[in-house]
Amino acid sequence: MVAIAYFSASDNADAYQAELTRLLPGCSFRRWPDIGDPAEVNYALVWKPPIGFFPALPHLKAVFSLGAGVDHLLTHPELPNDALIVRLVDAGMAPQMAEYALYAALHYHRDMDRYAADQAAGLWQPYPAVATADRRIGILGLGALGSEVGSRLAALGFDVAGWTRSPRDVPGLESFHGADGLEALLARSDILIILLPLTSETRGLLTEEKLRRLPQGAAVVNLARGAILPEAGLLAVLKDGHLRGAFLDVFDTEPLPADHPYRQHPNIRITPHIAAQTLVGPAAAQVAASIRRLEANMPIPGVVARQEGY
Amino acid sequence: MVAIAYFSASDNADAYQAELTRLLPGCSFRRWPDIGDPAEVNYALVWKPPIGFFPALPHLKAVFSLGAGVDHLLTHPELPNDALIVRLVDAGMAPQMAEYALYAALHYHRDMDRYAADQAAGLWQPYPAVATADRRIGILGLGALGSEVGSRLAALGFDVAGWTRSPRDVPGLESFHGADGLEALLARSDILIILLPLTSETRGLLTEEKLRRLPQGAAVVNLARGAILPEAGLLAVLKDGHLRGAFLDVFDTEPLPADHPYRQHPNIRITPHIAAQTLVGPAAAQVAASIRRLEANMPIPGVVARQEGY
Repeated sequence: MVAIAYFSASDNADAYQAELTRLLPGCSFRRWPDIGDPAEVNYALVWKPPIGFFPALPHLKAVFSLGAGVDHLLTHPELPNDALIVRLVDAGMAPQMAEYALYAALHYHRDMDRYAADQAAGLWQPYPAVATADRRIGILGLGALGSEVGSRLAALGFDVAGWTRSPRDVPGLESFHGADGLEALLARSDILIILLPLTSETRGLLTEEKLRRLPQGAAVVNLARGAILPEAGLLAVLKDGHLRGAFLDVFDTEPLPADHPYRQHPNIRITPHIAAQTLVGPAAAQVAASIRRLEANMPIPGVVARQEGY
Repeated sequence: MVAIAYFSASDNADAYQAELTRLLPGCSFRRWPDIGDPAEVNYALVWKPPIGFFPALPHLKAVFSLGAGVDHLLTHPELPNDALIVRLVDAGMAPQMAEYALYAALHYHRDMDRYAADQAAGLWQPYPAVATADRRIGILGLGALGSEVGSRLAALGFDVAGWTRSPRDVPGLESFHGADGLEALLARSDILIILLPLTSETRGLLTEEKLRRLPQGAAVVNLARGAILPEAGLLAVLKDGHLRGAFLDVFDTEPLPADHPYRQHPNIRITPHIAAQTLVGPAAAQVAASIRRLEANMPIPGVVARQEGY
């Protein structure tokens, strides 16, 4: 029998229950803390599970994260050693991420930040057009999300390059890797889009010093995790005008505290972590397919390499 | 010999002179009012030419408009009867128009209007994601610009339909035409994008009554001419919340007067007629190619049918 323990403070439990019991007839969907006989529960579907969750479930084969990120699991003090940790590979998230990235890139490319400020100030002032071929976009991270974003931007004619830790080719994109490659990518990015996983190597990566490698007047878009882009450095490079602006969907603390300096900053646009919302249909389909394969002792996609952190 | 009379208050005369004399060696580029011997001048390249311009130039074979719109010529009281009126068919304008339309569509599709207002109000509040397939976009006008915009939006997965005066097929788009078709298109457009020429038939087309055929909460994007979307009707449907917002690049009077109600309206975003700026390189190349063909008595693209108005 398949029994799934579910916990999330921010997703739609009813919708997941309906979908999973439809896709896996006979499965038992149990919402924490009502988990019934713990010995029967062999799968968990969670977002930021509470302390006490994992010790209560000693027979988990796999823990599915309700999102692309798994840092909320890998930093959990009670994560079981022997269960597979599985992230959603793409539950409708890549297209959403691409939409957001496209919007944010066009926001700066087409001077929409300046026109909005001019409207508020009562000005009427055209800025010269720049062809997309002359606008350099850099993408940090070329996984499923970064590749999709890069391809979409390249299709509009932007001059797109990407950076990854180790060499990786994405058709149509110039690609950089390693520490030297990061310096080179930053130096050629008018708009920098962050789509890296949060790991011990990416935490704090974009220091003030790194941000100063970007061209004067560049903009930064963070769609990954707040901790990759430390706040003090970002505020410093915005303050002296080295950066033109930042479009941020993710933050160290979420919700962003009411008195946080990002909130009312004239050159920062914030959204409440909505760039890629997990869609129940595709997410449940992916979890159900993986459970079927695990029950048949077959390999599944999205298994996290714990040492790598993603 | 080829002699071109040039007038524009808003374009770069030096750049056009350099490009055209390079592309048409031996041609004479004359800036109004320094036109030399009027009998030699057989072409005009203009944007909103002043009174007195046309009577001074009795031997014009063709008048090229420095933009896609020709309403500034067709309403000119001194327009010569026997010269060809030629509009730029696409001087780098279609991609720019597509970028702007994409940005404006994503602005509403991804609730960026709401998130910007929430940021200003100190709120943190996610709105549910909607798949592009469930977002209906309607495009009024399927010429070179409307077709490009429609294809780009369809490529992102939006449910796109278009409307034209007479039947026209654009691959991948549902298409409507005529008066009944307009009602049908409006009824299914969550986001309406206006890309029609300004003619006697389209002037004042989108009355308050027409705007009320749009679904509750729809948004309007005007990239064509202000006179197609009368102001009183738009303000009325915004005031009672039938429309969610309007993204406007064009206005009856430009620059938009400082005390105009659009300027500080919380649900209207304005830009100073920059959706598709004429790029000198492609525009000059198109004009030069057409002049060569006319000198060889060959037909050219973009000739305006005066009765039709575009």
